[in-house]
Amino acid sequence: MRIAIDAMGGDNAPDEIVSGALEATELLEKNDELILVGPKDIVEPRVPSKFRKKGVTIVDAPEVIGMDEAPIESLRNKRNSSIAVMAKMAKEGQADAVISAGNTGACVVAFQMRMRNLAGVNRPGIAVVFPTFEGPVTICDVGANIACKPINLYQYGVMAKMYSKHVLGIENPRVGIMSIGQEEGKGDEIVKKARELMKSDVNLNFIGNIEGRDIFKGVCDVVVCDGFVGNVILKLTEGVVDGLFQAIKHELGEEKLLLVMKFKPVMMRIYKKYDYHEYGGAPLLGLNGTALICHGASESRTIKNAIMTAKAFHTKKINDKITEYLLSTSVRTSNEQGS
Amino acid sequence: MRIAIDAMGGDNAPDEIVSGALEATELLEKNDELILVGPKDIVEPRVPSKFRKKGVTIVDAPEVIGMDEAPIESLRNKRNSSIAVMAKMAKEGQADAVISAGNTGACVVAFQMRMRNLAGVNRPGIAVVFPTFEGPVTICDVGANIACKPINLYQYGVMAKMYSKHVLGIENPRVGIMSIGQEEGKGDEIVKKARELMKSDVNLNFIGNIEGRDIFKGVCDVVVCDGFVGNVILKLTEGVVDGLFQAIKHELGEEKLLLVMKFKPVMMRIYKKYDYHEYGGAPLLGLNGTALICHGASESRTIKNAIMTAKAFHTKKINDKITEYLLSTSVRTSNEQGS
Repeated sequence: MRIAIDAMGGDNAPDEIVSGALEATELLEKNDELILVGPKDIVEPRVPSKFRKKGVTIVDAPEVIGMDEAPIESLRNKRNSSIAVMAKMAKEGQADAVISAGNTGACVVAFQMRMRNLAGVNRPGIAVVFPTFEGPVTICDVGANIACKPINLYQYGVMAKMYSKHVLGIENPRVGIMSIGQEEGKGDEIVKKARELMKSDVNLNFIGNIEGRDIFKGVCDVVVCDGFVGNVILKLTEGVVDGLFQAIKHELGEEKLLLVMKFKPVMMRIYKKYDYHEYGGAPLLGLNGTALICHGASESRTIKNAIMTAKAFHTKKINDKITEYLLSTSVRTSNEQGS
Repeated sequence: MRIAIDAMGGDNAPDEIVSGALEATELLEKNDELILVGPKDIVEPRVPSKFRKKGVTIVDAPEVIGMDEAPIESLRNKRNSSIAVMAKMAKEGQADAVISAGNTGACVVAFQMRMRNLAGVNRPGIAVVFPTFEGPVTICDVGANIACKPINLYQYGVMAKMYSKHVLGIENPRVGIMSIGQEEGKGDEIVKKARELMKSDVNLNFIGNIEGRDIFKGVCDVVVCDGFVGNVILKLTEGVVDGLFQAIKHELGEEKLLLVMKFKPVMMRIYKKYDYHEYGGAPLLGLNGTALICHGASESRTIKNAIMTAKAFHTKKINDKITEYLLSTSVRTSNEQGS
């Protein structure tokens, strides 16, 4: 399998990205290949020659799209950027998977434009896995589509379910839709219509509305929402966790040093459980290919984990499973007006 | 000042509600009156006669609206419910403020219908104060209006700013709008239009887009969002905090008992800071009156704090300040099409 990695993506690029890729070589199989995409003069000096034998190659992409650049404009102006080049490689069959911690908007636009949608999928969505105390919860969409139609939300449920089942190994994932109350009547019109679609699919294991507080309570394995709400959820959770750990540190600072020392390992264990670096990238579900988008603050281990996730996604043929499901369900055809 | 309290509202009614009201009598002024609204046969035995001299009275409202009942239907069928009776009392000038920890939807509908909107306000919004490490952050709306127009969001900014300034004592509150990126172009059409309105108001101290993670970072004092997003934020934050404290407890359980004992006061201090019981109820801003909605899990101290918040809201004439601001700004008149 050939996995292309954006060497220039994210706040810690290129060093952490290249390191992560090199570390991942230990975990790869014989025929796997890692393709670092970025300006050759920057990437090449960072790859010791012994890694060439371990399947690491470099593809030159002299331009870089900044984290805050406007997606469509930057792609138009920088056709030789790492993101644009990777998307083209995926389209032309030179890469089986693409991974970037760069500009999320630019990734979504470029990958969608080049790789196209999977058969049966109207709009791709980004899925993020939240490690919770009750097990991993997959949330889709977290930012690819902020103007969702009911059919998009239904398909996010299906796609995230396939991911949860076949990549995370959850037997029959329970799917919930994010709303503002558990009762049927709660939510806006789009959510209400999406719920009807989900309810009509007996294979989905749909549990109905969930609320913000339910994500961490183990009531479902998949959470469906539009990209605006999902993005707020993703960033807010990060903010609350960070804020709380800072508060604990501050409060501990007022205690005896011994207590602080003793509590540190406890905090480290918890922090690791809630840490997005462990997620290993968020799949852009619904593309005709494998694409993972990583956190802008990705470190080497984030990239290493993302590479392993890409391998699992590809090997377990998640896209085939999504297509099979969507082609066999009656929801798509009987509700085409909702697309 | 006469404050009506829904004796039957919330999961812990009537005991915690009545206790909270009785405790609050210690903090009231001479002419203050607390009116407990609920079924007389349930409320009366819970109020020792000495409190009658302290300004506690009871108004009979034999019916109760359950937490999960459909708002409009339940109000239609239960005209003698505590929520319906309180709303009528506010309308007819028998109460200067109303407080309920009951069915939020029923409260919003009843209070809005009876008390009407404040001059210059198109739609009321619920504001919740998040105690953060960097100071209190007021978020509006958290559930009154899930189909916001740009002018509604602008007015939420103004109203929450007045609350933050005059009730919380923040000099010139900075107002941010919740979106999915800090750049101008991010967000859906409603958010983009609302941002233009806010930008055009030089007195608002508008700082632009904020993201979910910014709420706890001290970048602004007021966060504007629609009721759907705000409700998710409110409940998600609760869920993350609870989940994290459970995780800490679990991890500590594996440590020595001595460490657990020593860490307990640290946790209690932090928990108190992030605890919604300290908020003292969320004002329904934009009503021609004072109405506070409390968390369904309210305890006696939540109610006591809400009573003190109602007093501050009324005494500091927040509604006059909102009306003054909205009548003097050019945004309302020049963008009437957005209403």
